[in-house]
Amino acid sequence: MDRNIQVSRLDRQAVEDQEVEIVERKGIGHPDSICDGLAESVSRALSQLYLDRVGKVLHYNTDETQLVAGRAAPAFGGGEVVEPIYILVVGRATKEYDGEQLPVDSTALRAAREYLAEAIPELEYGTDVVVDVKLGEGSGDLQDVFGEETQQVPMANDTSFGVGHAPLTETETIVHETERELNTTYYADHPELGPDVKVMGKREGDRIDITVAAAMVDAYIDDLDDYDDAVTDVREFVEGLARDHTDREVNVDVNTADDYEQGSIYLTVTGTSAEQGDDGSVGRGNRANGLITPNRPMSMEATSGKNPVNHIGKIYNLLSTHIAESVTEEVDGIRDLQVRLLSQIGRPIDEPHVADAQIVTADGVDIADIEDQVVEIIDAELADVTGVTRRVIDGDVSTF
Amino acid sequence: MDRNIQVSRLDRQAVEDQEVEIVERKGIGHPDSICDGLAESVSRALSQLYLDRVGKVLHYNTDETQLVAGRAAPAFGGGEVVEPIYILVVGRATKEYDGEQLPVDSTALRAAREYLAEAIPELEYGTDVVVDVKLGEGSGDLQDVFGEETQQVPMANDTSFGVGHAPLTETETIVHETERELNTTYYADHPELGPDVKVMGKREGDRIDITVAAAMVDAYIDDLDDYDDAVTDVREFVEGLARDHTDREVNVDVNTADDYEQGSIYLTVTGTSAEQGDDGSVGRGNRANGLITPNRPMSMEATSGKNPVNHIGKIYNLLSTHIAESVTEEVDGIRDLQVRLLSQIGRPIDEPHVADAQIVTADGVDIADIEDQVVEIIDAELADVTGVTRRVIDGDVSTF
Amino acid sequence: MDRNIQVSRLDRQAVEDQEVEIVERKGIGHPDSICDGLAESVSRALSQLYLDRVGKVLHYNTDETQLVAGRAAPAFGGGEVVEPIYILVVGRATKEYDGEQLPVDSTALRAAREYLAEAIPELEYGTDVVVDVKLGEGSGDLQDVFGEETQQVPMANDTSFGVGHAPLTETETIVHETERELNTTYYADHPELGPDVKVMGKREGDRIDITVAAAMVDAYIDDLDDYDDAVTDVREFVEGLARDHTDREVNVDVNTADDYEQGSIYLTVTGTSAEQGDDGSVGRGNRANGLITPNRPMSMEATSGKNPVNHIGKIYNLLSTHIAESVTEEVDGIRDLQVRLLSQIGRPIDEPHVADAQIVTADGVDIADIEDQVVEIIDAELADVTGVTRRVIDGDVSTF
Amino acid sequence: MDRNIQVSRLDRQAVEDQEVEIVERKGIGHPDSICDGLAESVSRALSQLYLDRVGKVLHYNTDETQLVAGRAAPAFGGGEVVEPIYILVVGRATKEYDGEQLPVDSTALRAAREYLAEAIPELEYGTDVVVDVKLGEGSGDLQDVFGEETQQVPMANDTSFGVGHAPLTETETIVHETERELNTTYYADHPELGPDVKVMGKREGDRIDITVAAAMVDAYIDDLDDYDDAVTDVREFVEGLARDHTDREVNVDVNTADDYEQGSIYLTVTGTSAEQGDDGSVGRGNRANGLITPNRPMSMEATSGKNPVNHIGKIYNLLSTHIAESVTEEVDGIRDLQVRLLSQIGRPIDEPHVADAQIVTADGVDIADIEDQVVEIIDAELADVTGVTRRVIDGDVSTF
Repeated sequence: MDRNIQVSRLDRQAVEDQEVEIVERKGIGHPDSICDGLAESVSRALSQLYLDRVGKVLHYNTDETQLVAGRAAPAFGGGEVVEPIYILVVGRATKEYDGEQLPVDSTALRAAREYLAEAIPELEYGTDVVVDVKLGEGSGDLQDVFGEETQQVPMANDTSFGVGHAPLTETETIVHETERELNTTYYADHPELGPDVKVMGKREGDRIDITVAAAMVDAYIDDLDDYDDAVTDVREFVEGLARDHTDREVNVDVNTADDYEQGSIYLTVTGTSAEQGDDGSVGRGNRANGLITPNRPMSMEATSGKNPVNHIGKIYNLLSTHIAESVTEEVDGIRDLQVRLLSQIGRPIDEPHVADAQIVTADGVDIADIEDQVVEIIDAELADVTGVTRRVIDGDVSTF
Repeated sequence: MDRNIQVSRLDRQAVEDQEVEIVERKGIGHPDSICDGLAESVSRALSQLYLDRVGKVLHYNTDETQLVAGRAAPAFGGGEVVEPIYILVVGRATKEYDGEQLPVDSTALRAAREYLAEAIPELEYGTDVVVDVKLGEGSGDLQDVFGEETQQVPMANDTSFGVGHAPLTETETIVHETERELNTTYYADHPELGPDVKVMGKREGDRIDITVAAAMVDAYIDDLDDYDDAVTDVREFVEGLARDHTDREVNVDVNTADDYEQGSIYLTVTGTSAEQGDDGSVGRGNRANGLITPNRPMSMEATSGKNPVNHIGKIYNLLSTHIAESVTEEVDGIRDLQVRLLSQIGRPIDEPHVADAQIVTADGVDIADIEDQVVEIIDAELADVTGVTRRVIDGDVSTF
Repeated sequence: MDRNIQVSRLDRQAVEDQEVEIVERKGIGHPDSICDGLAESVSRALSQLYLDRVGKVLHYNTDETQLVAGRAAPAFGGGEVVEPIYILVVGRATKEYDGEQLPVDSTALRAAREYLAEAIPELEYGTDVVVDVKLGEGSGDLQDVFGEETQQVPMANDTSFGVGHAPLTETETIVHETERELNTTYYADHPELGPDVKVMGKREGDRIDITVAAAMVDAYIDDLDDYDDAVTDVREFVEGLARDHTDREVNVDVNTADDYEQGSIYLTVTGTSAEQGDDGSVGRGNRANGLITPNRPMSMEATSGKNPVNHIGKIYNLLSTHIAESVTEEVDGIRDLQVRLLSQIGRPIDEPHVADAQIVTADGVDIADIEDQVVEIIDAELADVTGVTRRVIDGDVSTF
Repeated sequence: MDRNIQVSRLDRQAVEDQEVEIVERKGIGHPDSICDGLAESVSRALSQLYLDRVGKVLHYNTDETQLVAGRAAPAFGGGEVVEPIYILVVGRATKEYDGEQLPVDSTALRAAREYLAEAIPELEYGTDVVVDVKLGEGSGDLQDVFGEETQQVPMANDTSFGVGHAPLTETETIVHETERELNTTYYADHPELGPDVKVMGKREGDRIDITVAAAMVDAYIDDLDDYDDAVTDVREFVEGLARDHTDREVNVDVNTADDYEQGSIYLTVTGTSAEQGDDGSVGRGNRANGLITPNRPMSMEATSGKNPVNHIGKIYNLLSTHIAESVTEEVDGIRDLQVRLLSQIGRPIDEPHVADAQIVTADGVDIADIEDQVVEIIDAELADVTGVTRRVIDGDVSTF
């Protein structure tokens, strides 16, 4: 098999060297991320259901979830949700196979409930949030087989493309890590920090501004002083974290929209702005690599919730990111790498219409020096395209 | 105050003496009863919320709940719900008072969840059943005050009537007790019995036929023999119970529609037929006294879920039943008593347009002998009309 | 075939001769009636769809419809609906037959839209009212055949009963005709009268009180004088109508809850109280004969929306009413007649467990004189039980 | 006022000169575009409602709409929709102002209905599609004034950015025009072409491949030959159109996934794939300039449906596009221009944190030559920032 793999010079500076850089990450408690996470977790549960019951993944797609915000009345020491958040899980799924009824609706609802319990622990299921599901009957004509025994390479179901890049710039790294660390390490000791952490990074030359919006949970905040301490703690933590990743000047702002005089602060009952007026849906937030990067090409495809067996948009976005990471890890001399995979409908997905790696090399390195190595890695990764499917089903890959 | 209370002879035989009698009771797990119970429990929760927060009951009404049946795949030893039951709690409620937001939606949802957990324990919330709520903004103009300190007698909000009767006939007693005892005493030792027990009693002369439809829970039933034993146990229990209440001939049938050859039996995952195709709504099942009695006048008013402070249909149905029971308890010589209360819109509810007691006296008793006593009791009960409201809010009265 | 038909004396006075009589009718624009009418019209459309497509009526049931009230801001000369009424059509239906997809959802929605356009003409579809549908997959196991060629007598699907009576009393006639005439003859010249006309009749001895609540449509009412004229017109019309049916004293009240001083009048945008806070559902209003009659036994079964082929509750309620009317029409000397039909699950529906006619004869007439004639008519009507199904599908029978 | 406007060299080739270029446009009938168009049209209707009723635009946001696909059974000569498409319009809106109720729900529904009638004419409202609305109560604290008399410059409500570019490359132009012309000029004579036209352009060097997926409407297609003609007509039209915009080699494919042998063709009842399995939501399709352009930076912000008075993501995306177009129109020597606007929360929106124009100049042109002119235009456009709001409300700007 001869794959159409092209390697060329990326005709711009590395993003790290550009004058202005903007990067954003919506934390797992952001309304859009809630939808992404929930859709992906429903997707995984359905894949697993199909594997358990019929030995292979059947047709489904759950990449649409609509969150309608609720209303809340937060208060120091603990307020309450007044109107619940409403979440509608939307999609298609095969509900019957070989005469057997498959509990796709119940499975989707269970996955949603379990995901919410883990991701937004302060949200009381069935009171603070109502989850409903509308899964249409899938077309059932999914011919591609991803089963326990055989893992065929499917045909592309669409003309679509995926794009990935590596390595992350300092600003990208800081933005990504800020959210990840706040919601894990930091949260472990600071229950007052809600999961709705939004991080915006802007770099102008050698100055990085990190703006964090962090929803505080009222039950753990006694008064305004307490709140102010909570904000300060977050800022200091992020400053420390940023210094580990850059020597540039870093400035961190947390909850800049607060106005203590007016009593306008970012206090919530459940730790997410979805409780009060912020709607959300799948695919409107972070891209497959966890970031929103206006300095780089992005795919509009929602990655979360899609069927990982044959949805080419999902597979190529995850795979191009994976390829970019593998290449920069294994090949020296790459300052900035961008990988694009373009499918052609009806062609096996391990043979993209074009696989295109564009590189900004480090000083003194020539594309010709590394081209063969890059092609080889890309070729191997394409040959193992079903590995993406496997990793998605196993939950080893993050999609947002 | 001079109340319009009329006592007269009921111009028919006592129902006990009629040739044919039909009585029905839908158990608490029947789809219509689920709606009744849920609506009433939401109503109680809202009354309590208002009393707790603003010291008086505000305008609300939750006497509409729609249950859309699910789909299930029961199996000996334990099957599964395939499509969840969907329940929509409908009504109006005051959401803001004196500038304070009142969590009526969350309160309604919590009440619903807690009620379901108690009434249909095998139903997994959020997976086997999805509950949503649509409470419109109440008009907020409820002038009647039922608060901690003052309990005014409100004006009738409608032209409506209530009807009650007493004492229960033997058949009525057996039908009522059959469901109550099966779902309490019997269930304590027989987890295989689901709460969806429907009892139909028919008496022709001195022969009483009791037909029971009892949903069995598959997790506790290993095979067809086991199922057959479960059915037999129910029949024997009901036969024993019936013999305690009558000397007439009694015949008991349980799950008569079963066809063992065809494998058609009444096996369920959750103990309610709502899991498979049986929809339900408020006010379509038992009347306020817990029975459906085609031999007697009935009110079409749904009692469950209505505001107990001023909803005249609810109050008069409960009160007329209460009056009938009080009168027959305290006054000797009554073989059959029927009480009707008719309101007139805009008049205080303790002054019905007409309160009308019709009596079949025992042999040798004349209406004139007991008329004064009857009037006195009715008068006293009307004077204490707000007692109904109090008992409803405290949960001391069953509405279905 | 030997049907179990029993004729006996009704052991009470004719309702016409009782001291107190209460009768109610909810007009077609009442929220409960809207649900009844819509459910029945959806049912008819599905029957027709099945007949057209597969030549016989398949399994379905649409006897649940939930109406959630909207909010409106009526104003002299024309106000507006602020929040739409929401109607959820609920039920089960067979969606696929012999490999062919049947458009049950679209058919149901079209029937609903057309019904609303006719019944509540001022209601703008899709703006003032949103209709959604949840029709579960029917069990598909309906063996009974009601097709173009063959019309088998089905087996009873439940233990249930129907009850009918005739002739109507004067009060019943007046109440029924008041609503019917107001919504047809009168409306033709008075577009200001909305279809939500509720009529309550009370007779004490020889005095009949008719209380009418009539929703006026604001677009046709310019000011309070205009409104007052509209109310007066209705009262005069009803007074005239009543006088055609009785020699008793008649008193008519229209919109008695109005308070002109306070500006509290019954003005609506669309002619139904569903626009402002009044929810509704199927089976909570009029019985199969179009009335609510607390002086008479009633069935709790919702008649509207049920499958007319084999739903015994529907068939027996309509049939018992039909039988009562036929008998009193053809047999002289009947002052009051009550017919009850009781099914037994699994038995052909033309052989009820018991068909029971109870009669109050006119002076000088003995039951024995007419018994044979009554039995014969009942027998013939039972033999033609599928005629009910046919008339329902053709829309020749009203169910509420 | 001194705006932070920066002009610099764009450190890459013009997209026109890059080796590989990918461009996509989802037509107005694509499920995602339906949501975009509907959300924007609801937004415009609400702006207009507020202006009409209270003289200024109040707080609202309707940038979330979820479309749940239906099911259809297309057939040559005319098939039918079997399960309706379900559309949920989501957002917040101020429902009361100064004691007056504002009909936001009804207004939203009317706008949705009118938009669908225009955009997808074959879709029968209320039968083929059900539209519901969930608009939460807005916070009501929108201080910014955009009224009839005064048009203040509001403060940014978020830290966000917009990005625009100009001029369009040949491929971009062809992709954009293909959809626009097919859905207007071509459609006028070809009713068989549905509005769900998806166009993908790929350029490798000097060869442009245009792949069109065009939903055909079955009522206008009699058989496979007819269908084949319809496809051929589209291809020839697009080939002609493309030749008007480029001298490069152009290849056009239409409905490449068709398999005539298998009878698998792109035939629909309503002209949109939403009728059969394709869900959609706002903000997942075309960016503000009508294209998806992986070769260029894009904003993830949904532009459609957002409040145009103060939603910075919407305003800055539209304004940056508008600025890019103005600059390239008025200034000579620009081969590729990219404009980014970054807001800072709390700052007036006519003073972005940074306005950044990056330019690829034509041969022989130096940035210094044109910098002043560019700055001047940007400055003027920023000064007229409320012009964007005005154009959006007037419907003069497309957002997708």
